[in-house]
Amino acid sequence: MKLIIAIVQDEDSHKLMNKLTEEGFSFTKLATTGSFLRSGNTTLLIGTEEDKVDTVIDIIEKVCKTRDQYITSVPPTGGTTGMFYSQPVEVTIGGATIFVVDVDKFKKV
Amino acid sequence: MKLIIAIVQDEDSHKLMNKLTEEGFSFTKLATTGSFLRSGNTTLLIGTEEDKVDTVIDIIEKVCKTRDQYITSVPPTGGTTGMFYSQPVEVTIGGATIFVVDVDKFKKV
Amino acid sequence: MKLIIAIVQDEDSHKLMNKLTEEGFSFTKLATTGSFLRSGNTTLLIGTEEDKVDTVIDIIEKVCKTRDQYITSVPPTGGTTGMFYSQPVEVTIGGATIFVVDVDKFKKV
Ligand code: NI
Ligand code: NI
Ligand code: NI
Repeated sequence: MKLIIAIVQDEDSHKLMNKLTEEGFSFTKLATTGSFLRSGNTTLLIGTEEDKVDTVIDIIEKVCKTRDQYITSVPPTGGTTGMFYSQPVEVTIGGATIFVVDVDKFKKV
Repeated sequence: MKLIIAIVQDEDSHKLMNKLTEEGFSFTKLATTGSFLRSGNTTLLIGTEEDKVDTVIDIIEKVCKTRDQYITSVPPTGGTTGMFYSQPVEVTIGGATIFVVDVDKFKKV
Repeated sequence: MKLIIAIVQDEDSHKLMNKLTEEGFSFTKLATTGSFLRSGNTTLLIGTEEDKVDTVIDIIEKVCKTRDQYITSVPPTGGTTGMFYSQPVEVTIGGATIFVVDVDKFKKV
């Protein structure tokens, strides 16, 4: 039995949880406030048999892989600037940090 | 030294923390948002000597074991339905997921 | 690869995260609600190579070590007591609980 501790971006966490559920994995979502500089991380605890660890890592990688995205900035709400033409900006999103830890004993009661 | 990661229902967490304190175990409560479908889980980190692991698991089992309960639904607040006769509904509550992990080094400063 | 789980007082967490970042360590801050009796703990997950574990523990110890402090109590907000002379009270603050756990596999995607 292994415990996978996956720290992912909040934006990817819903899709990842859906995908893990679909594939039959159970998990617990911990509320996280992210690292010091980047806010919005979510930590999932996923318990699984040793021979399924790579499957879980593959799922995380597919859903959460770092990628570039063009984002069009939105005028701040309540702004009084009238017309506002925004230019798309390239940002890097996603990414995950994964720790796999051995489990001595696992029990559901 | 072992680290016990116990994910319990929020309803059981107060009783469990009381019981663990009574029995001399120390722990940290992590704020959790539960799994995707079932909200309201709490994760406790409990550090203990190897020979006390089964005692802790027994305590968790006693307090958190899955059990059926009859719940009488309550009219929604702010409802305008006038009279409301509710029937008790049987629901399964409780349950815990427990991971025991080996600790290389443990230190209090 | 090791995973260091450090539970520290919230008051020390900002200084600790600054110091760890300065020294090149990365970490994730989990939101915690503290132990049952003492609120305001923060849990950090710090992944590092085995030969850096003691450096991280030293940093935690330096920043978070238990120490006594004189605190001058502040009249409760909204109080109507008029004049209020407070005496400094000695309290123990700080402290950290550190678990070091072996990591089977570590991956960033
Ligand atoms: Ni969300
Ligand atoms: Ni509660
Ligand atoms: Ni703070």
